[in-house]
Amino acid sequence: MYTIERDPELEQQQDKGSETLEEGASSATMRHDEKSSESLERCGSFDSMLCPADMSARSRKAYLQHMMDELPRPVHNRILAMKHSQMEQIKISEQFYREVYELEKRFYLQCAELFDSRRDIVDGSVEPEPMEPSWSEQHDDLVAELQASKEFHQLTELMPKMPANAVGVPRFWLSIFRNVSLLSDMVQHHDEPLLECLMDVRISYEPESYTLKFLFRPNSYLDDCSLMLTKKYLLRHQADQEYPFMFEGPEIVSCEGCHIHWRDDSNLTMQTVGSGYRVGNAIPRESFFNFFSPPQPQDLSLADEKTKMLLGNDFEVGFLLRTQIVPKAVLFYTGDLVDSTNEGLSDSDSSETSDTDADTDTTAPAPTHTPEQLSD
Amino acid sequence: MYTIERDPELEQQQDKGSETLEEGASSATMRHDEKSSESLERCGSFDSMLCPADMSARSRKAYLQHMMDELPRPVHNRILAMKHSQMEQIKISEQFYREVYELEKRFYLQCAELFDSRRDIVDGSVEPEPMEPSWSEQHDDLVAELQASKEFHQLTELMPKMPANAVGVPRFWLSIFRNVSLLSDMVQHHDEPLLECLMDVRISYEPESYTLKFLFRPNSYLDDCSLMLTKKYLLRHQADQEYPFMFEGPEIVSCEGCHIHWRDDSNLTMQTVGSGYRVGNAIPRESFFNFFSPPQPQDLSLADEKTKMLLGNDFEVGFLLRTQIVPKAVLFYTGDLVDSTNEGLSDSDSSETSDTDADTDTTAPAPTHTPEQLSD
Repeated sequence: MYTIERDPELEQQQDKGSETLEEGASSATMRHDEKSSESLERCGSFDSMLCPADMSARSRKAYLQHMMDELPRPVHNRILAMKHSQMEQIKISEQFYREVYELEKRFYLQCAELFDSRRDIVDGSVEPEPMEPSWSEQHDDLVAELQASKEFHQLTELMPKMPANAVGVPRFWLSIFRNVSLLSDMVQHHDEPLLECLMDVRISYEPESYTLKFLFRPNSYLDDCSLMLTKKYLLRHQADQEYPFMFEGPEIVSCEGCHIHWRDDSNLTMQTVGSGYRVGNAIPRESFFNFFSPPQPQDLSLADEKTKMLLGNDFEVGFLLRTQIVPKAVLFYTGDLVDSTNEGLSDSDSSETSDTDADTDTTAPAPTHTPEQLSD
Repeated sequence: MYTIERDPELEQQQDKGSETLEEGASSATMRHDEKSSESLERCGSFDSMLCPADMSARSRKAYLQHMMDELPRPVHNRILAMKHSQMEQIKISEQFYREVYELEKRFYLQCAELFDSRRDIVDGSVEPEPMEPSWSEQHDDLVAELQASKEFHQLTELMPKMPANAVGVPRFWLSIFRNVSLLSDMVQHHDEPLLECLMDVRISYEPESYTLKFLFRPNSYLDDCSLMLTKKYLLRHQADQEYPFMFEGPEIVSCEGCHIHWRDDSNLTMQTVGSGYRVGNAIPRESFFNFFSPPQPQDLSLADEKTKMLLGNDFEVGFLLRTQIVPKAVLFYTGDLVDSTNEGLSDSDSSETSDTDADTDTTAPAPTHTPEQLSD
């Protein structure tokens, strides 16, 4: 039996135990104890102040950097030699991650028919046979408890009802966008009527990039030549020259949107404002559709903080759509998967914490693609 | 230009803008506005109470489950059909993840020589040529600032000095264990003398499992027949039957330790206690070496909470060692990589937050291996 977390009280008790032990200990256990203290003298004890794992990440970095600087020259050189080996290993891992990316592409293509059938059901062109689940539907006691509460009933009374004769699955993609924090943050009220017309989201994989394709049914906002909007994410398959040791696979380095042909006066990214002689001035406004005209800095590392933040967020969205939302859309519609951005929020309906929640953390993309690397 | 986070103030201003707009708007913009409100009436507006992304994960699950239950029968059936497709996709993804695991194994074997050279440098059997870094050493202003502080100087005065004639890199693996929270939490003071003798950690990949091998130099704790300790992690490459939709690749389902042949009275996992007539009673105590005798429940899902917690933690350690520590050991020694468990800790030496830290989050293994799935 072992405990992972140190219990300070327990440790104190153990220390007391050792004292008792010294009084009546056998010579064998004494020898044992001597070994420990000999070691402590030789190398200094890691008291709580000196255990790097207990420091904040940055303090630990500072401490360990200092430790490196203080190493005797020969030992320092041995560490450098090991870092050279590490660089060679990173070269090998570049090829490994390229092959994983190729596998992902092949997997996506294998699923193409399944994505076609999803689209056909969403837009109502195919009516599936009645069927029963072949899986056991998840049962969560805390969810059931929540659903029994008065607050929950008040909440659900406001829930919009779907008509029995609905075609396909109305608002399928819009609902998903509203169920996932990272996406919902981008969607404005005025975007919803057009996002109701979003029928499919697909990916095409190119060797050095991938493109998200958003397919709309004909509508009164977009010109018919603009019913497919695209967003391309360019990848770097090599380790960053400045931070080679952070390499964890292909990284998004830039993105390209597309021109949207709006019908007259239907541009959701612009707003006509003004009074008196300034009537009719169009100014930009927040909209999901700004996703298709991201900032295009010449050099991301030299961009201002706001641009870095915007693009960092954009890359996260692009990564989330490719790895989670597009392949598993229906699960985000049903709530079988929920992102855990709001994990810290208190459930007003429940005093239980959700620490043991089995939800997939979809908002923590692999370190490879996090925008943090941009902001240094 | 687009903003990802909604600014409530900005939204209010925009609402005011719309009011002004209605006064002197052209018929075209009016048409636009009508479309929006028509849509709101038809499907109900997502006010802040009703946007699932703003709810806690559990509330969102409850809300969406209720929404499913309320769907008209034909729409509900369409969703079921899509979930059937999703199940087929999961079958395809099982093969995808198997191939990724095969690639990982191949990559590891390609790096074997590099791991050999690391071991030879650590144990002092090979002295590398003097060399210069071929990479630019990271410079972090906040780290430099921290290092200039008085507190930091006090801290580093206590830092143990390494003798110039040290053989190899003393305490290499022990230092790594002390630099990474998840590992450091397992290591007790009395484990350190033996962990100083840890010379190498390796992995062997089997089709349905992998084994961590801990190699010690001869020492006064372990019998010579026990200088290699092993920990085997068994994998399930198929989706969990109960939670098929959570599948994200092979999952650790159980683990096996090994018997340790301790030299007489050197067992670090036992403590001799007692006074008077009970002198010499040996009782279990906390120790890193309990890692090699994990609890073995017949059925993990039926195990008590403590066992689930212990094994969940153990599986995380097993995953971290395989994916981060073993392949990149030197970077955890130098602090080039630090886990971010303590990211929330305030730097006593700095008022800056570390939100923009470029550190790799090594404590967030892929959702596949998180222990949360055990605790339901």
